[in-house]
Amino acid sequence: MPKSHKHHLIIECFRANSGIYHVTQAQWAAAARRHKALGKRVTATIVWDRDGIDKALKTADMMITVNPPRERLRERAPRLKWIQNRGAGINHLMPLDWLPDDIVLTNNRGAHGAKCEDYCTMALLMLATHMPAFMAQQHARQWKAAFSAPIAGKTAVVIGFGDLGSAAGRAAKKLGMKVIAVTRSGKAGKPADAAYKVSRLDSMLPKADFVVVATPLTQKTRGLMTRERLALLKPGAALINVGRAPLVDYDALRDMLNGGKLAGAMLDVHDPEPLPADSPIWTTPNLIVTPHVSCDNPRYMDLLLDRWFENFARFAAGKPLLNQVDRKLGY
Amino acid sequence: MPKSHKHHLIIECFRANSGIYHVTQAQWAAAARRHKALGKRVTATIVWDRDGIDKALKTADMMITVNPPRERLRERAPRLKWIQNRGAGINHLMPLDWLPDDIVLTNNRGAHGAKCEDYCTMALLMLATHMPAFMAQQHARQWKAAFSAPIAGKTAVVIGFGDLGSAAGRAAKKLGMKVIAVTRSGKAGKPADAAYKVSRLDSMLPKADFVVVATPLTQKTRGLMTRERLALLKPGAALINVGRAPLVDYDALRDMLNGGKLAGAMLDVHDPEPLPADSPIWTTPNLIVTPHVSCDNPRYMDLLLDRWFENFARFAAGKPLLNQVDRKLGY
Repeated sequence: MPKSHKHHLIIECFRANSGIYHVTQAQWAAAARRHKALGKRVTATIVWDRDGIDKALKTADMMITVNPPRERLRERAPRLKWIQNRGAGINHLMPLDWLPDDIVLTNNRGAHGAKCEDYCTMALLMLATHMPAFMAQQHARQWKAAFSAPIAGKTAVVIGFGDLGSAAGRAAKKLGMKVIAVTRSGKAGKPADAAYKVSRLDSMLPKADFVVVATPLTQKTRGLMTRERLALLKPGAALINVGRAPLVDYDALRDMLNGGKLAGAMLDVHDPEPLPADSPIWTTPNLIVTPHVSCDNPRYMDLLLDRWFENFARFAAGKPLLNQVDRKLGY
Repeated sequence: MPKSHKHHLIIECFRANSGIYHVTQAQWAAAARRHKALGKRVTATIVWDRDGIDKALKTADMMITVNPPRERLRERAPRLKWIQNRGAGINHLMPLDWLPDDIVLTNNRGAHGAKCEDYCTMALLMLATHMPAFMAQQHARQWKAAFSAPIAGKTAVVIGFGDLGSAAGRAAKKLGMKVIAVTRSGKAGKPADAAYKVSRLDSMLPKADFVVVATPLTQKTRGLMTRERLALLKPGAALINVGRAPLVDYDALRDMLNGGKLAGAMLDVHDPEPLPADSPIWTTPNLIVTPHVSCDNPRYMDLLLDRWFENFARFAAGKPLLNQVDRKLGY
């Protein structure tokens, strides 16, 4: 590929999405400048309306989007070789039968660690210290002290130990907790104290003071935390979900919270999102709702573009891309 | 003093106080057993009703209480040599003109670090990530995302760097923050990155993303965070108070929160406590109320008794006691 060749990138923004997921011309220009020579080798088209996308697709080599056009994609985009998914999760794109074999799909794995670590640190402490009750009491103007032991020494069972799970592990470890990772492979790096295969999940859950659900949503993980598994948790345990809502049976979780069998839950992911005003999730006792903000940064797209340029250097050099999605595993 | 001499200790419990501050006979017996030989040298009288206290005072050498009898104390308690205050703060006992010169007053300084570190870690993260707004939105069943950068790299100005302040410092440092301590002496140990005298407070406040108020309440610190000083904070800064309410002008703080000039506040200490139902504190936007629980542990009295026994070993050996209150400084 001659060095002078300009690659055509489509950046697809969705107006309805939060502004942190938009890329302006100025943002793109700044990112291109940060990457100097590489930046000069890319022409970007920022697309806001799918109506006008076909013209751009005709010459596009690469695309950044959260929801790629799937119908007759090869025909409409004959040169397309690489789709960068905006987020880490690609469960919404499964099954990948619409994706031609010669188009590489990459995700934004690894972008969420720092924020996720902050969120999990906070969530563990809030659930350990009666914060859900204090929030309800504040609204009712009620003063009712409740005490709790320091969190150090308690046990977190972290399900999934990729970008988010290892961030949850760092959070727990930083608080002096014991960290048990449950993963597909049964292996986990630092800072897990122990790691087990997901087939051992039922034996690990009773050990948990806190469960952090941080696995990708795939056909194998959907519904992983069933009513039966939630019932294995000890009284007073608590659950945090930073993965995807369908990983956990929220109806069962609400029953356990209503019955006082769990101390609390902190859920950043919901189904659907936005959570409808009439959802019973909002008012379940000791349940804290955050609006899918745990792992994202206001500079999200700038960071994504920087990571994309690192991968673009590999793309332009004909090297394999990082963060390729495994079509079979679905993440 | 012959080794066989039994010392008489009064443990004064107040029924109206939270149960975590009570000591049962069984708790005392267990504590005495933990300290073996020392335990055998103490006879304890647990007093629940002040009406009956005079009989016990006649022979008491030592006392554990949060509110010692002050009237004609020497006359009523001719042998009393040592009063252990239940908490760390002794501002409620000032001025100490009721306290005979030959009675040593000790406080429970150092018992609150682990819990305070947990609380400050949580409070910093809650204020950094729009949690006060999310709490209000949950109550209103509103889904409105708001994003925030990771907390690492932000600056905490910690006022007071004793037991609580250094715990706040450890919390901030653990989160990757910069820690500026403001202290009476202008000195602070780890993990402060820098320390300044309280006379430099006005120059430090504009640097703060977060201010943590963690100083004892004394005649010199009362009202330290005036309206003028709060106005020195940069827009979007936030305040945490784990010290005592009168350290901060809460009316001014509420004005700033109502006007959106500060991002939030998290207050564990109030005046009076319990906070009355009609206090405007409860409903101030972006203000989180906790009911004076930040630094206490459900095993508080067990831990206090263990620390007391350590000091009793010194007392019985005629050595100076640890944690003696400085009558002039008032802490």
